[in-house]
Amino acid sequence: MAEGFTSVETCLEKHIPVQELKEVKRILYGRELETLSFSEEALNVANKYNFELKGFKITAGQEHLTPPRIVRIGVIQNSIVEDTSAPVDEQRNALHQRISTLTEGAYLCGVNILCYQEAWNMPFAFCTREKQPWCEFAEDVKFGPTSLLCQELAKKYNMYIVSPILERDEVHGDTLWNTAAVFSNRGCYLGKSRKNHIPRVGDFNESTYYMEGDTGHTVFSTQYGRIAINICYGRHHPQNWMMYGVNGAEIVFNPSATVGGLSEPMWGIEARNAAIANSYFTCAINRVGTETFPNEFTSADGKPAHKDFGHFYGSSYVAAPDGSRTPGLSRNRDGLLVTEVDLNLCRQVKDRWGFRMTQRLDMYASSLSEAVKPDYIPSVVRDEIHLLDHPYLHEAVEHLPSALKKSENWLTTKPLTEEEHQSPPLIS
Amino acid sequence: MAEGFTSVETCLEKHIPVQELKEVKRILYGRELETLSFSEEALNVANKYNFELKGFKITAGQEHLTPPRIVRIGVIQNSIVEDTSAPVDEQRNALHQRISTLTEGAYLCGVNILCYQEAWNMPFAFCTREKQPWCEFAEDVKFGPTSLLCQELAKKYNMYIVSPILERDEVHGDTLWNTAAVFSNRGCYLGKSRKNHIPRVGDFNESTYYMEGDTGHTVFSTQYGRIAINICYGRHHPQNWMMYGVNGAEIVFNPSATVGGLSEPMWGIEARNAAIANSYFTCAINRVGTETFPNEFTSADGKPAHKDFGHFYGSSYVAAPDGSRTPGLSRNRDGLLVTEVDLNLCRQVKDRWGFRMTQRLDMYASSLSEAVKPDYIPSVVRDEIHLLDHPYLHEAVEHLPSALKKSENWLTTKPLTEEEHQSPPLIS
Repeated sequence: MAEGFTSVETCLEKHIPVQELKEVKRILYGRELETLSFSEEALNVANKYNFELKGFKITAGQEHLTPPRIVRIGVIQNSIVEDTSAPVDEQRNALHQRISTLTEGAYLCGVNILCYQEAWNMPFAFCTREKQPWCEFAEDVKFGPTSLLCQELAKKYNMYIVSPILERDEVHGDTLWNTAAVFSNRGCYLGKSRKNHIPRVGDFNESTYYMEGDTGHTVFSTQYGRIAINICYGRHHPQNWMMYGVNGAEIVFNPSATVGGLSEPMWGIEARNAAIANSYFTCAINRVGTETFPNEFTSADGKPAHKDFGHFYGSSYVAAPDGSRTPGLSRNRDGLLVTEVDLNLCRQVKDRWGFRMTQRLDMYASSLSEAVKPDYIPSVVRDEIHLLDHPYLHEAVEHLPSALKKSENWLTTKPLTEEEHQSPPLIS
Repeated sequence: MAEGFTSVETCLEKHIPVQELKEVKRILYGRELETLSFSEEALNVANKYNFELKGFKITAGQEHLTPPRIVRIGVIQNSIVEDTSAPVDEQRNALHQRISTLTEGAYLCGVNILCYQEAWNMPFAFCTREKQPWCEFAEDVKFGPTSLLCQELAKKYNMYIVSPILERDEVHGDTLWNTAAVFSNRGCYLGKSRKNHIPRVGDFNESTYYMEGDTGHTVFSTQYGRIAINICYGRHHPQNWMMYGVNGAEIVFNPSATVGGLSEPMWGIEARNAAIANSYFTCAINRVGTETFPNEFTSADGKPAHKDFGHFYGSSYVAAPDGSRTPGLSRNRDGLLVTEVDLNLCRQVKDRWGFRMTQRLDMYASSLSEAVKPDYIPSVVRDEIHLLDHPYLHEAVEHLPSALKKSENWLTTKPLTEEEHQSPPLIS
């Protein structure tokens, strides 16, 4: 990677002349956003504790009847603090300390709703497939030490906090879950939202640890608007995003943990597409840094066993329903992104684009209900001349009577060779 | 706009140093794609007839049992040829001529499946709201002059052709539809796919002319793989994309007509997100140029009446299931983009990422079926302290007995003022 490369946006700003930059940014990031300025105290904390601090404002149009519904949304990305071989409580306490500091920073920036990254109370150890000691990081979603800390912080700073952790549900068979807990600005536990879609890709062996969430698509109605949480891999599933919208969400957080080699070109696409399709704000939050584990593990990619998980590339950002987005936080530093939004924009975009009225959900409710039946027959028009388009049939042909094999139909199913491509077919 | 600005990609190539450019392109466009080289004859045609010609190759991994399934996909973007005040047949004939030339170009580049832009047989006149003469461009999807031309071209060039036109269905009440016809490489009409979602945004007064499509999510099984067509505004609807995937599509064309002021920041997002979410290839095709009409019309934007539709920004591209995409064609020239893909990539990405197995369609079939009922109650957890979060309630408070008004609960529902934001709340 190019040295000192911190983000695409920084690189564009550095090299592209101002007139063209304007055009590039319009096409890639949507309308230009005003930056927020923060108090010296806030800047000092960011400086002293070495985290990036960025702020943007996403405005809406003035209305006659509804006053602006201004909210400051905070998202935090951070690296782990202690070595992964340290005792579990030391690792967790160090993260508690770090997050408390960053949360104070958010408070000094006037944040009303704050969300941390996925499983923030631990290293993302699921690559190891070891159950010990990692399962020890799991805690009760309401009374565990991490949740108690969040309640304290939420109350102290008068701030809603979304806290995604590894959950232990003792009441229901000691089960583990990937869960976000929501706390009100009075320090009350409001409820939880479990990760709906569990990855089995690359080093993300999460299905080894916990199951698909059973909390549906709950929306939390707060003083500052209606929020929901779509955890990590759920961002690849448009239906998941959709249901939070159907239930009325205005801001959907996507606390994640994902690495450069796997997903980086998708990162700017998915949460932003969801904001557009559902006319709400989305907040894509990723871990940052490289996590190294005590024992070596393999990655099912033919490469030798190793001890690190690859680079969590940060790049957290907020996307708006009108298709615009903030620049991202850095690829390699802890950071706090503060975005002041006017929630009226959600309804205004609905009125303008009409996606919620033109989306024909009744048709999809009925087609999906058909499609999930085991005997569903897809709606396919076949070009009769080329009936046999399944690749396995090329093999089957080998075992057919030769008379049949000579029939043109069998042969036309072969893909063209490189040569056939280069010489154009005959004109009849 | 910056003068001579033809595309984001050209601008990045021009200004960003090679090492950093590599990183920017990896993050914004995914893996690097080999370019295709074409015969001198092909280049000459492009040169002589003044259209941009670009070619890329999207490879897949080698497999033991399935040979590569190589297909060359062509997409064409073009401006109208004649003045919009010319007689309808002259305008149409000139477009027929232009498209025949571009199709010959595609043939010379070895294209197997070719798709034209939305309503390519006419100017995009729906901004005018006039029925005459524009409805005269509508034709029978099988036997109209445009479809007859396509049959001829498809047969002549041994190429599947997707031809999106304004359709007149004489058999069913002379109704109009926005429809794509599909022709086999033997020149046979295979069937049609109608636009499922109709816009009512900006100057896109299409609901004035035709209704939501009734052909569902048909997939066409061709010699070169399974294709489907999601016309224009349907790209904003993830459920629409999804159903083509459920029916087995491997390539989904998105023939469009959209202008800079409205949608440009969304253009690179939506078709690409669909490719990722559904593990298939998508081809986003846009018109190019500015179309001016004989009579002035207004755009419901407070601005004076005018005669043009704004700039169709071209920028057609192909996106792959692994999150990568080709660069786009130019923002201001006619063009042909040829993309050679190996369709095995669809299944390989399904195996790798598992989106089709982890998408829990049964859950969404059931939640959607509930959600579309008129008495559906969204799943919302309310912060009891701030029950009244609807903005209209601020108005209602005015009319309440003053004793009730003083109750804290009414007041905490107000959004924070600018001042309150700047001075952090008290620490309790």
